[in-house]
Amino acid sequence: MSEQVTPLNQVGEIGLIRLIQDTITLHQPSSVLGIGDDAAILAPPAEHDIVVSTDLLVEGVHFDLSFCPLKHLGYKAVAVNVSDIAAMNALPTQITVSLALPGRFSVEAVQEFYEGVRLASEAYRVDVVGGDTTNSRGGLVISVTALGTVARGQAVRRSGARVNDLICVTGDLGAAYLGLQILEREKQAYLADPETQPKLDAYDYVVQRQLRPEARMDVIHMLRDLNVTPTSMIDISDGLASEIMHLCAASGVGATIFSDRLPADQQVYNVADEFRLDPVMCILNGGEDYELLFTVPLTDFDKLKNHPDVTIIGKITEASEGAILAAKGGNAVPLRAQGWSHFGR
Amino acid sequence: MSEQVTPLNQVGEIGLIRLIQDTITLHQPSSVLGIGDDAAILAPPAEHDIVVSTDLLVEGVHFDLSFCPLKHLGYKAVAVNVSDIAAMNALPTQITVSLALPGRFSVEAVQEFYEGVRLASEAYRVDVVGGDTTNSRGGLVISVTALGTVARGQAVRRSGARVNDLICVTGDLGAAYLGLQILEREKQAYLADPETQPKLDAYDYVVQRQLRPEARMDVIHMLRDLNVTPTSMIDISDGLASEIMHLCAASGVGATIFSDRLPADQQVYNVADEFRLDPVMCILNGGEDYELLFTVPLTDFDKLKNHPDVTIIGKITEASEGAILAAKGGNAVPLRAQGWSHFGR
Repeated sequence: MSEQVTPLNQVGEIGLIRLIQDTITLHQPSSVLGIGDDAAILAPPAEHDIVVSTDLLVEGVHFDLSFCPLKHLGYKAVAVNVSDIAAMNALPTQITVSLALPGRFSVEAVQEFYEGVRLASEAYRVDVVGGDTTNSRGGLVISVTALGTVARGQAVRRSGARVNDLICVTGDLGAAYLGLQILEREKQAYLADPETQPKLDAYDYVVQRQLRPEARMDVIHMLRDLNVTPTSMIDISDGLASEIMHLCAASGVGATIFSDRLPADQQVYNVADEFRLDPVMCILNGGEDYELLFTVPLTDFDKLKNHPDVTIIGKITEASEGAILAAKGGNAVPLRAQGWSHFGR
Repeated sequence: MSEQVTPLNQVGEIGLIRLIQDTITLHQPSSVLGIGDDAAILAPPAEHDIVVSTDLLVEGVHFDLSFCPLKHLGYKAVAVNVSDIAAMNALPTQITVSLALPGRFSVEAVQEFYEGVRLASEAYRVDVVGGDTTNSRGGLVISVTALGTVARGQAVRRSGARVNDLICVTGDLGAAYLGLQILEREKQAYLADPETQPKLDAYDYVVQRQLRPEARMDVIHMLRDLNVTPTSMIDISDGLASEIMHLCAASGVGATIFSDRLPADQQVYNVADEFRLDPVMCILNGGEDYELLFTVPLTDFDKLKNHPDVTIIGKITEASEGAILAAKGGNAVPLRAQGWSHFGR
């Protein structure tokens, strides 16, 4: 079976845009005009604010095409931007997706990427209304801008955490980072011996968390149903510790995190052990889990204490107390952010 | 005198964002929250539509840093996106600016780029509300998304041209393309002999049109003052011929362009002659002039016939007549688009 490979210059930029356009259906009532003009036209609902976020994903920096399938990458590019919209307590409505494509890319590869974009846009009910495709002299570069809406004044910022608020986190942490370690190890094994079959069965959860993260829009809907409005919120892209410090800095507060409360899947402990890594370090600094970190007033405790998707991991303190990691025995150490920096560390 | 050169990793991603943030002031009443949270918050005015456009600029494809100063590049990155907003008959309000930065870039170089962004954002009264900065393994990549507002239903699309409408173009054409030829020639001369001083005096207009194009927001305001609403509009980024064909295809019409009506600066004729290029070809296919091409009903003729910034270059015809270039003697040839394709030709 031979896979079809059509060079990009055979269809040209306009032909490519047409192919992409054909895969797109607009669902949002606010999407008046999508791809195909100088700009998209949107009709935002009355009495709503708009939130806008943008992310740049660069081959060799944010992803490795030798183990990241293009369809997953397309999905992830949308999901990580939707995650930023979720972190504002808003609902995603539209996205633009731009690609700088290396010459080695085929039309089919671009279509594969857009299939992932399409799947994510349907999962999150967000319309692709624009973008730009061009040549790249380096690797693949993806730029996504996401727009969302929220009732006027209801956007949740990083800056609203108050002393005594509960600190909550969704899902579990550390898996995406350990998934990356697995994928990189298997890549090295493959490079050393191309006959090697990657052994990923025992690592399905952590690998999937790395390759296909989900934005926690379900949690935004759940909080609305519970009538809980976070006082502050941020999504966990760089690592829990780093995001807690951002939140503390923006809100002018301190935080105490209880290390025995940190949520992690059993595979995180297993894989950390295999790599001789401290699982708590992976949970605190791994990043790329795209879970939500938020604070709520103490009065919301009953609504969240038994929620299967939310873990209360600590509390907001006075700024003078700083950001602290407290162990069960009473031992407390300053929280340290060792999140990603793309300019080296 | 030694110029300061601070490596990017000395300030890190967060330090860099802070430096950029410090240069930014928000002016638009709709900008509620700018850079620094998961997303920006905008409060669009009631009864208005929002237009969104995005562009990717790639080093080695769209610009050459050996002759394009970073400040001009920052200005141009904003201007070309504002031009798309103008082409919808909208006013620009916010932009996001993302950069993938090669390791060789210094903090000062990034600041130089943002100085250009700042100048353009003040010229066009558009607020920088977001962005992303990251490492690039290839060259510099710039992604800008622009938002604008227009009274509900008043956005002008490519698809509204009607038979007998007048075809208008702003400013003059062909200069940006010839400016690029000059800059590339001087670059080759410099590479052959680094002692050579570039000779640009006689080419100031065409070079400036290439390096620092302006979005024709002034024309949008002028048309409002004259109470003229174009039936269709597009900005000229790829070349007049190509944009006319886009407009005809979207509107389901034909067009006749009178070659003796095409507006060009005297320097365009001089430089075309120097390069033994047909000036009409440069005007029709040069691209990157970022002027506006629009159509108006015949009844607006009197309002525009003597306008110094607008030239009536032809008329809309039935689709069956196709897109035609008519010479003074009565000779008519089909218009051919030879605009840019970024995937090679």
